[in-house]
Amino acid sequence: MLSPELQSLQTRLQHAFKDSALLQRAVTHRSFSSDHNERLEFLGDSVLSLAVSDMLFRRLRDLPEGDLSRMRANLVKQDSLHRIAMRLKLSDVLRLGEGESKSGGKLRPSILADAVEALIGAVYLDGGFEPAQALVQRFFEGVDLSPEKQAAAKDAKTALQELLQGRKMRLPQYNVVSTAGAAHKQTFDVVCEIPELGLTEHGSGGSRRAAEQAAAAKLLVHLKAHNA
Amino acid sequence: MLSPELQSLQTRLQHAFKDSALLQRAVTHRSFSSDHNERLEFLGDSVLSLAVSDMLFRRLRDLPEGDLSRMRANLVKQDSLHRIAMRLKLSDVLRLGEGESKSGGKLRPSILADAVEALIGAVYLDGGFEPAQALVQRFFEGVDLSPEKQAAAKDAKTALQELLQGRKMRLPQYNVVSTAGAAHKQTFDVVCEIPELGLTEHGSGGSRRAAEQAAAAKLLVHLKAHNA
Repeated sequence: MLSPELQSLQTRLQHAFKDSALLQRAVTHRSFSSDHNERLEFLGDSVLSLAVSDMLFRRLRDLPEGDLSRMRANLVKQDSLHRIAMRLKLSDVLRLGEGESKSGGKLRPSILADAVEALIGAVYLDGGFEPAQALVQRFFEGVDLSPEKQAAAKDAKTALQELLQGRKMRLPQYNVVSTAGAAHKQTFDVVCEIPELGLTEHGSGGSRRAAEQAAAAKLLVHLKAHNA
Repeated sequence: MLSPELQSLQTRLQHAFKDSALLQRAVTHRSFSSDHNERLEFLGDSVLSLAVSDMLFRRLRDLPEGDLSRMRANLVKQDSLHRIAMRLKLSDVLRLGEGESKSGGKLRPSILADAVEALIGAVYLDGGFEPAQALVQRFFEGVDLSPEKQAAAKDAKTALQELLQGRKMRLPQYNVVSTAGAAHKQTFDVVCEIPELGLTEHGSGGSRRAAEQAAAAKLLVHLKAHNA
């Protein structure tokens, strides 16, 4: 029988499991039990990739392969799955070993993102590709797939670098200034600096890369606004 | 209407296309027409990955995620798809621009491997996930999935390196000694040398990496046979 928490997760997923052991396993970290979610995550990773590829392929009929690949990479990356895990409140149901739990594992973006993939794998095994695809589509319902938006979100660091190179300036410098809370919570605070312009901006995020992107995005806005 | 060559490819694929334009597009290289196969390849790459993941997941019930991932990478890599393309005789049907064709493009492993992915994507669009999955299963029908076999095939270079490191010896040296025929046909001949043992072996393959793996595999066999 499912716990009330898993019942409620099932409602949020909008998928009623025929085999509820799959749901249980999908939220079980390897630190909790040998019957854990890593193989489901392996499978779910591929299901996610195909469902997202299909979505992009059909909705963006004029986009070349390279752009589709970059958009897919952006949609299936850890930060994006981490956000989905938060919406699903996975922290409430994750089963972690005591040590992992005490060190903040339930808030760790990598553990949460992996559990999202495992859930997708579990739905795939439970019902086949179609319900799993529908689940992924619900996950990305609110996401703006316009190439402009994606390009902006995707690539602040690259855009900033190209802008500076176009002006024959040196590359921006990124430095982690702090990691908030326990190391395992992985909230990074990064400063991006453009020495030649005397500009700096902070960015924070669930990973170093996300924080750097945030900082680069702010600098880009700044540079464009001031035409610096 | 399909050409006799495409009719016969369709027979080899064991999939009768409802929309034959998809089949046509799947064998069309970007050098031939703007209606080429790259977006189909993008989609087919994900279909292939899921079909292989599913196959490995169900057939290797005791294998941890890391081994499954390594096996998947091995099965979907270019060399493996290139072999499938040869069995399908894709060189006979590929549509390439004149320049690409003259420089041996029809035999290029990368172009052939991409066309295999595009065909998988085309079947997926034409009939959905199930026929595409069945196609992939036929492609890998003869492949020995036993972990031992896969581990041996996979990782001769790594295994050789580890064996030598275990004996505190320097890394093996790989050198390309020739590329047979035109550069674009990419048949590489590589020599792998272990100076401290005075041993060398040749290996050849459709890519530099494949040739290196072949050479490393021979040296491994040699070392194990002679307990050198």
